[in-house]
Amino acid sequence: MSTWFEITQSLDGFVAGPDPSLEDPLGKRGEDLHEWAFALASWREPHGRDGGEAGPENDLMQESRSRAGAVVMGRSMFSGGSGPWEDDPRASGWWGDEPPFGVPVFVVTHHEREPLVLGATRFEFVTGGVEEAVERAVAAAGDRDVSIAGGASVGRQALAAGLVDELLIHTAPMLLGGGTRLFDGEVAGLEIAEALAGPRATHVRYRVTR
Amino acid sequence: MSTWFEITQSLDGFVAGPDPSLEDPLGKRGEDLHEWAFALASWREPHGRDGGEAGPENDLMQESRSRAGAVVMGRSMFSGGSGPWEDDPRASGWWGDEPPFGVPVFVVTHHEREPLVLGATRFEFVTGGVEEAVERAVAAAGDRDVSIAGGASVGRQALAAGLVDELLIHTAPMLLGGGTRLFDGEVAGLEIAEALAGPRATHVRYRVTR
Repeated sequence: MSTWFEITQSLDGFVAGPDPSLEDPLGKRGEDLHEWAFALASWREPHGRDGGEAGPENDLMQESRSRAGAVVMGRSMFSGGSGPWEDDPRASGWWGDEPPFGVPVFVVTHHEREPLVLGATRFEFVTGGVEEAVERAVAAAGDRDVSIAGGASVGRQALAAGLVDELLIHTAPMLLGGGTRLFDGEVAGLEIAEALAGPRATHVRYRVTR
Repeated sequence: MSTWFEITQSLDGFVAGPDPSLEDPLGKRGEDLHEWAFALASWREPHGRDGGEAGPENDLMQESRSRAGAVVMGRSMFSGGSGPWEDDPRASGWWGDEPPFGVPVFVVTHHEREPLVLGATRFEFVTGGVEEAVERAVAAAGDRDVSIAGGASVGRQALAAGLVDELLIHTAPMLLGGGTRLFDGEVAGLEIAEALAGPRATHVRYRVTR
């Protein structure tokens, strides 16, 4: 059993662009970060879309999907909100009626809430911080691994707490110039475990060594 | 004729670590960024060292070397200084009596100075900013290309001025946590032109598209 934190950044290290809003949660040009994924069959299928490309990048994404026995994410990745759930216009999440996970998802939040089942995905809301979320995800994942899916804040907290075995970083060919930084002061030694170059992004898997 | 800016960064986007000094110009752990290069024959040979690895990364570095007809660098990459030359303890540069360039090097500085010839390398000192330095380097390079060798500040200035055709970014597997950022607010569209993964770094060549 291992845990990995997987996210897409710009070459200048941002996971969202400047001026995010509820209408534009990834900020200016932030959506463009994910163009590489939108083209792939293994992204399109769980999102209810036809077609898409096969090939090594598709295999990489498919592997992430089949490997995850549970997912950890932050509140902003779940709904974009931060306050009490009754004030959150997206309290049912960004992910529609059929979220693409299909495994238990543990949402790190300051606000308690009963579990929410949407399609094949059960969301549980964890108020004990990223440590509790990862612990519960590990228990739920069985023989499979735990995906720490973001955003940057939850990933960084998990990394700082020593809870991340691997980073899988997708780098999109763009300089966003501002926005939400992926890393912010963390110090770590890494080893390159796998690297793959596609036409729209490069993908590197790192083992965290200290 | 084209220009490229080539530099090594950490995964979190730093080209030098925290607390640089004259004794430790790349800051804490900053030297480790370049471990991938120290192992290669094409780095060792111009630096007067024997041995080293062959292979695709070596070829990439060799290509950069043979492609450059002239080099542009900042004052801090030349000597680490910033004030008048007579006050600079490293006024003859970091590079020893036989600098590894062998082509004209244009140093961007605020302080005028006569050219300096060391071994096969002629350094010229340019007070008209990065624009003038690139212009003179292009004239000196003949049929060959111009290497914008760093540091980050000169590379960013050249990028902002529209003087960079390509970025060649080497990413070392480490999080430095602080130091000198490679990018700082620049916005650009990029296309992946080439990507290569080695055991100690990944290397991506980007075309600057806007």
